[in-house]
Amino acid sequence: MLTIPRRHFLVAVAGTAGASALSRSANPAWAQDEGPLPEVVDWKDPDSTIVHTEFTVETERGAIGTSGITSKDVLYLRNNLPSPDEDRVADRDSWEVSIEGVREPRSITVGELKDLGVETVATVLQCSGNGRGFFDHDTSGSQWLTGAAGNLLWSGVPVRNVVDALGGLEDGRNFMTSTGGETLPEGIDAKQVVVERSVPVDHAVEHAILAWEMNGEPVPRAHGGPLRVIVPGYYGINNVKYVKRVSFTEEESDAAIMRTGYRVRPVGVDGAPDQPSMWEMKVKSWVTRPLAEAGTGRVQIHGVAFGGFNALDSVEVSTDGGDNWQQARLLGPDLGRFSWRPFVLSAELEPGTYTVTSRATDAEGTVQEEVTAPNHRGYDYSGWRALAVDVTVV
Amino acid sequence: MLTIPRRHFLVAVAGTAGASALSRSANPAWAQDEGPLPEVVDWKDPDSTIVHTEFTVETERGAIGTSGITSKDVLYLRNNLPSPDEDRVADRDSWEVSIEGVREPRSITVGELKDLGVETVATVLQCSGNGRGFFDHDTSGSQWLTGAAGNLLWSGVPVRNVVDALGGLEDGRNFMTSTGGETLPEGIDAKQVVVERSVPVDHAVEHAILAWEMNGEPVPRAHGGPLRVIVPGYYGINNVKYVKRVSFTEEESDAAIMRTGYRVRPVGVDGAPDQPSMWEMKVKSWVTRPLAEAGTGRVQIHGVAFGGFNALDSVEVSTDGGDNWQQARLLGPDLGRFSWRPFVLSAELEPGTYTVTSRATDAEGTVQEEVTAPNHRGYDYSGWRALAVDVTVV
Repeated sequence: MLTIPRRHFLVAVAGTAGASALSRSANPAWAQDEGPLPEVVDWKDPDSTIVHTEFTVETERGAIGTSGITSKDVLYLRNNLPSPDEDRVADRDSWEVSIEGVREPRSITVGELKDLGVETVATVLQCSGNGRGFFDHDTSGSQWLTGAAGNLLWSGVPVRNVVDALGGLEDGRNFMTSTGGETLPEGIDAKQVVVERSVPVDHAVEHAILAWEMNGEPVPRAHGGPLRVIVPGYYGINNVKYVKRVSFTEEESDAAIMRTGYRVRPVGVDGAPDQPSMWEMKVKSWVTRPLAEAGTGRVQIHGVAFGGFNALDSVEVSTDGGDNWQQARLLGPDLGRFSWRPFVLSAELEPGTYTVTSRATDAEGTVQEEVTAPNHRGYDYSGWRALAVDVTVV
Repeated sequence: MLTIPRRHFLVAVAGTAGASALSRSANPAWAQDEGPLPEVVDWKDPDSTIVHTEFTVETERGAIGTSGITSKDVLYLRNNLPSPDEDRVADRDSWEVSIEGVREPRSITVGELKDLGVETVATVLQCSGNGRGFFDHDTSGSQWLTGAAGNLLWSGVPVRNVVDALGGLEDGRNFMTSTGGETLPEGIDAKQVVVERSVPVDHAVEHAILAWEMNGEPVPRAHGGPLRVIVPGYYGINNVKYVKRVSFTEEESDAAIMRTGYRVRPVGVDGAPDQPSMWEMKVKSWVTRPLAEAGTGRVQIHGVAFGGFNALDSVEVSTDGGDNWQQARLLGPDLGRFSWRPFVLSAELEPGTYTVTSRATDAEGTVQEEVTAPNHRGYDYSGWRALAVDVTVV
């Protein structure tokens, strides 16, 4: 089933110019779904995923169900560098991470971490560029629609336990800076390519974990195993894979991915350290069913909603493009502040065409935005108007 | 890693008679793990599973992590008949189930069910024979240890919604009787082999769902897709796969699997309808880590616990074979009354050998039993003494 964003659909039927726009970007997911699944995720479900590139695989909008948790078989992939080889996960417990910026810094294995404590947390994992395909301005990078996001259960050791075990933080540490263990391409300045991200230390010590388990099994290699930093409430890029160093630092990393990458700025402006970094996620929701057609009568409208950095409070659904809203019912167990929640609205629909969308509110009272203002890199389109789908009831 | 039940270990080191006992049944899982994974589950992780037979595959005790949810890749398999072919799930929404014993009986497709409502529930799925390998008496059937159990998120339509949509129950309906859609072998009386189970109607109408989704994806064929009855709090056999008929009946089914099978009775006694059926599950827990060796110092002891039919209240852990107990900490989100919950106890252990076990208490105050009395078929060994593991701390 193809899902064409409503905005693009309207453009597409507007005439020649529209048709041209359609062929360029109206359904970028479809246009780019040309190759087979990359080797590192060749076990994913091809019918539930859209292959953008070797490093970017999206979840089909309709493949997100109502369980609350995203199966790894449909979970999106976004790598900044090639995944390490299979031998990286051959002996998971022996993987070492260097802990720095604490009073007793040292390398510690995953096996040792497992005896420092354990916590389990459900978090939304969402690529900064999720929704990029809904922006009108030209953006480079994969034209994600809704599917660069999932909700996972992670188990690992709380960062605070590791800090405590190593004598506590050195003075003046403002950030937790995590470095990925990918093999860097030769001939390029490491600072330009290394995956190294800093996040505010208070949030990290309170909420972050070093995770070895995802959804009940060892973290898959493609998703960061043997050890991944999980920073609940923060965009995916901060959840560093194959983490080989966790350093508590005074300053943010000077790696390009931190210094100038993942910075929110106006269109046409270069990235710079004084711009907001892609840290805390926004309140957001979208409908996952129905996406094109539905039968007359009672229709169950499903979707997912999350508060982002804050807990989710509630979700409303509109079937008339936002003129009227009805409270949706949240489904299944509450998995916590950083989790998403499936929702459902039971609607009686006569034959016709309906513009169906959803609007979430977080626990602080912040309502999902109607329109997301352009930003240079096309980060996190969250506006409920463009996330709408046109459903024909027959 | 092999895990030999403590009782068997003691028998094994006791001399020739013990050695004989060991070779017969001390580690039945190991003894029976001879074949490759059956075709219908050839996607499971061979390192995390124990193949008993073509129809029975167990989860390795140490493969259950702390996420709370069991990955399908490690989930046990217990089929009573061969799974249907792949074409059974080629068009899931067109699968039909006949609803009978309601005022407006009719066949209804999965696609139609999806518009009658949706609910998501986490349930322990546990084979009646889980733990059979811990009984001392001779029992036929797979010698499961702890691994014929998992915890899953299911999504589907509540049975009460289906009943309401079809005019309500006919008078005098005491049971919900579900019939599996397996192809029956020829030349055998269907009543002798059909998977058809009855459960009390009040529980079914309050809690059961007809599920099309498991852990965020369509229910795998091996696990009952396209449609499975989920009866929260009840043993696995009542969660009928490939369900083709749901009939609200005055009497229990006269199929052998209901009339004489899955009946709890003394050793040597034939099954009969007046004996308790394997319906409501018991309060139970077991340790999943460590299972054999651990390092000196702080050790994180993990396990899973559930109340069975009732909610879980708490779990205790003993490192001295049950002489002393300490309260364990429950991990991760509470997934509801019918879910299991991972637990952890952080223990300081000097070098030596420890007999580690756990003991759960449900919300009604019922404590997991110390020893499970023999029953003819070896159903649900839940005694914490035999579920203990001997851990050597070096």
